[in-house]
Amino acid sequence: MPTYKFQYFDGRGRGEIIRYVFHAADKDFEDIRYDFPTWATIKESTPFGQIPVLTVDGKKLAQSGSIARYLAREFGLAGKTSWEQALIDQYMGLAGDLFKEVIKFYFEKDEGKKKELLKNLEDVLYPKFCGFFQNALEKNGGNYFVGSGLTLGDLAVIDIFDTPLHHSPKLMDAFPKLQAHRQRILALPNLATYVQKRKVTDI
Amino acid sequence: MPTYKFQYFDGRGRGEIIRYVFHAADKDFEDIRYDFPTWATIKESTPFGQIPVLTVDGKKLAQSGSIARYLAREFGLAGKTSWEQALIDQYMGLAGDLFKEVIKFYFEKDEGKKKELLKNLEDVLYPKFCGFFQNALEKNGGNYFVGSGLTLGDLAVIDIFDTPLHHSPKLMDAFPKLQAHRQRILALPNLATYVQKRKVTDI
Repeated sequence: MPTYKFQYFDGRGRGEIIRYVFHAADKDFEDIRYDFPTWATIKESTPFGQIPVLTVDGKKLAQSGSIARYLAREFGLAGKTSWEQALIDQYMGLAGDLFKEVIKFYFEKDEGKKKELLKNLEDVLYPKFCGFFQNALEKNGGNYFVGSGLTLGDLAVIDIFDTPLHHSPKLMDAFPKLQAHRQRILALPNLATYVQKRKVTDI
Repeated sequence: MPTYKFQYFDGRGRGEIIRYVFHAADKDFEDIRYDFPTWATIKESTPFGQIPVLTVDGKKLAQSGSIARYLAREFGLAGKTSWEQALIDQYMGLAGDLFKEVIKFYFEKDEGKKKELLKNLEDVLYPKFCGFFQNALEKNGGNYFVGSGLTLGDLAVIDIFDTPLHHSPKLMDAFPKLQAHRQRILALPNLATYVQKRKVTDI
């Protein structure tokens, strides 16, 4: 098996989806986590001055989505057909759209604007995206987002709601099937063990 | 061959990368382009209230990146190995990072802020990203971004600079190898024919 080294900050952010893939597939990897001062010292050694970066047997790959998709293919979590791979990708893209909005809220420094952004997330965006995801789940039978087993699609949806649920714990209450999916996936032994011991961070 | 129907606005934006894939592969598709009033009337019929949407033999797929990657796989433009696919994906992700900044500038309404954003693009971001892309190209021999032939990676880099070059035509002057790549790819007969007759839009 190749040797995997994964570099990111000591938080979830854009790195957690990759850690979820490793843990869901029960694959060993070196989970290197940086604080900001340390990151500044190694930034220049990364391909594009950014993390996450995956190193596979010495070869480096940047960009969260490309790393997650690559590992999902290697570990059998990328769907069984090109169309399934496309659907997984679609849900990742949709999760990415929501992430952009959450990030905007998270980094807003003006307290008034921050409140407005949170209100818009809670009143408009969380219900909208929960609706999209719950409908998609139901159309596929209710257990998984794509095909008949766990894929990166399920992990992407779990991942995208981790931060929102941290500040808005009731956002999924009106979407019981999406909530049930979340609980079921996070109860998978490898994921449950990881999440239980994971450091709690805002993002 | 499947029947492809592609829905997007009548501009480049997030849809052009997909049109590039179709044209580069010389595949027929229905290139449906909406103005804003028409878009408003069909928005509800799309999977997530957004375009681009691809319909393949009646099945719908949303999200620009997932559509582009799916078609690239179908048409042999997605690399020869999973690692090549990952590198293509990495360059798409990097192009996406630049796109976010260009979009920020494009939609800024305050004239003062818009000038500042343009200055930052021209002085900092365009040189930075041109440098990343030119280095990557040189590392792979100078002709293509990934492997030994045209892939979605090349098209993603071409696409991402279309809008910047529209407002900052000299941005690539200090990066002759990146510029040469751009000219060479855009001179491929199918792409040249398409680009020549394409409507000129700001974005």
